[in-house]
Amino acid sequence: MIPKVAMIGGGSWATAIIKMLSDNFTAKEIYWWMRNQESITHLQKYKHNPNYLSSVEIRIPEGNISDNISAIIEKAEYIILNVPAAFLKETLEGVSAEELKGKKIVSAIKGIVPDENLIIGEFLNQNYNIPYEDIVVISGPCHAEEVALEKLSYLTIASTNLELATTFARLLSTRYIKTNVSDDIFGTEYAAVLKNIYAVASGICHGVGYGDNFQAVLISNAIREIKRFVDAVHPISRDIIESAYLGDLLVTAYSQFSRNRTFGNMIGKGYTVKSAQLEMNMVAEGYYAVNSMHHVNKKYKVDMPISRAVYAILYEKHSPHIEMRLLTEQLS
Amino acid sequence: MIPKVAMIGGGSWATAIIKMLSDNFTAKEIYWWMRNQESITHLQKYKHNPNYLSSVEIRIPEGNISDNISAIIEKAEYIILNVPAAFLKETLEGVSAEELKGKKIVSAIKGIVPDENLIIGEFLNQNYNIPYEDIVVISGPCHAEEVALEKLSYLTIASTNLELATTFARLLSTRYIKTNVSDDIFGTEYAAVLKNIYAVASGICHGVGYGDNFQAVLISNAIREIKRFVDAVHPISRDIIESAYLGDLLVTAYSQFSRNRTFGNMIGKGYTVKSAQLEMNMVAEGYYAVNSMHHVNKKYKVDMPISRAVYAILYEKHSPHIEMRLLTEQLS
Repeated sequence: MIPKVAMIGGGSWATAIIKMLSDNFTAKEIYWWMRNQESITHLQKYKHNPNYLSSVEIRIPEGNISDNISAIIEKAEYIILNVPAAFLKETLEGVSAEELKGKKIVSAIKGIVPDENLIIGEFLNQNYNIPYEDIVVISGPCHAEEVALEKLSYLTIASTNLELATTFARLLSTRYIKTNVSDDIFGTEYAAVLKNIYAVASGICHGVGYGDNFQAVLISNAIREIKRFVDAVHPISRDIIESAYLGDLLVTAYSQFSRNRTFGNMIGKGYTVKSAQLEMNMVAEGYYAVNSMHHVNKKYKVDMPISRAVYAILYEKHSPHIEMRLLTEQLS
Repeated sequence: MIPKVAMIGGGSWATAIIKMLSDNFTAKEIYWWMRNQESITHLQKYKHNPNYLSSVEIRIPEGNISDNISAIIEKAEYIILNVPAAFLKETLEGVSAEELKGKKIVSAIKGIVPDENLIIGEFLNQNYNIPYEDIVVISGPCHAEEVALEKLSYLTIASTNLELATTFARLLSTRYIKTNVSDDIFGTEYAAVLKNIYAVASGICHGVGYGDNFQAVLISNAIREIKRFVDAVHPISRDIIESAYLGDLLVTAYSQFSRNRTFGNMIGKGYTVKSAQLEMNMVAEGYYAVNSMHHVNKKYKVDMPISRAVYAILYEKHSPHIEMRLLTEQLS
């Protein structure tokens, strides 16, 4: 029996993972749900996603692409969730726990569900009764744009069920994608959420006028902040300088592709949150993440000066100049 | 009695440190040795270093700048060594151990002495009988170019003698320079040497065609390689994600100012070592460092796949494409 994989979401990262699944040598059936009917029609007709990574040729049968989420989920055993965290609840609104029962749920989201303030694994476990041994997280330093160009990238596939992680990793690896497995889904998910906040921080600092010397200090403090937090939330033995943690932070905080960094840069230059969001026309996950983390951390009370500064700038309208100057006193 | 500080070396980093010493509020006498008599004359007449950071105004008395190294050393109690590691022996040729006796020797070199294959602290200790408690190392993520622009930067001042480190740190800190102290001179020095090798590696990978996703994996493997090596050489408790280690690696491997990265990029694009060196007209410390580290590591036998690949490319004329492809199999 060949594996059946469904992708839920139509953005860049979803398109990149569809490409990996298609280029991977294991025979499989691929199904794809996206909301936008125009995109689906375009995809079926021209074999390219009109809005994201439009250079990538999509080689899956027309009939496997649909805007009927229940029909797509029904077909597959692996369900990859790949919409922005802020839209996850809305996307799954018409889907019952019953429909997901027994399926392996893979999160490629790298975000935290707003209002609930839950990482994706927790959200699926609490709201859809998905047991942790059926949950997989895709992480690692990987811009979708470079996958489209077939630039070598490394993914970390995390699950408390290492056998499942290994099996799923085998469906993704290609000439240009190498995979590792990890059993640390909490640490991996939180690190992936937090790194978006530090990418916003990097952008703000750049916008305010700090240079590369400071950026290096900011990021080496950021990884310490990630370590403190994930060690508090889920105290297992982990090496924070592995690619799933440090690598993911680096690619996001240093790359020009990063939406979060671009968003932060506009804030540092003096845009309001609203005008930066309108201008970008894309969701900067870090904006939502810092609010959720602010609430989550009320429980853990971990010292997180960078996150706190970003929260104060984005949600309490503090001056980026002043807040970052105060932050510099707390770094080393 | 006001402190007397001598700078040995006339490059960008020397000029940057002269600027810090001058902008720092503690009254002090500053002396400056450089080899090039034309530069000295220009400096005395126009108050700017003609070749490096020429925007920086130099406010030290004409008579304090000289090409007579013994005369300069005699005047000062703190001697800051700031020539490329490859030229250190030659620079100190006419200087006796007697002349350095009782002085505090500060290394700003971030390199390893070729042939001897010794880090600067060891070299001074072994060849000039300087006791470790009189040796200080200046490290941390800090491009000289950003000091000239007064961009906020953090330095780590390391010495086994923490009181000396603290005293010397007080002479450097300014509005735009924050200082930490550390007692880990071995780890700090080796990390500063190794990071140049990884900056060369980053450049090679970029030149060969790898992207940002891979760069993040390379650097998170590089910091693990640094950790393995310094823990083997000098096993004390240290946190490798502090700015003096990780930050220094990041600023060098990610910045456009880096000579080592530029050199590596040319090698990756197909230049020979010789033509890349001629083209650049500057010393890429990583070129010497990887050779020295290759020899030093014969003793410790630490697993250092990235350094080994760079050595093979630069010294054994291996193809950058093939060597880096082999390396990708060893990273995670």
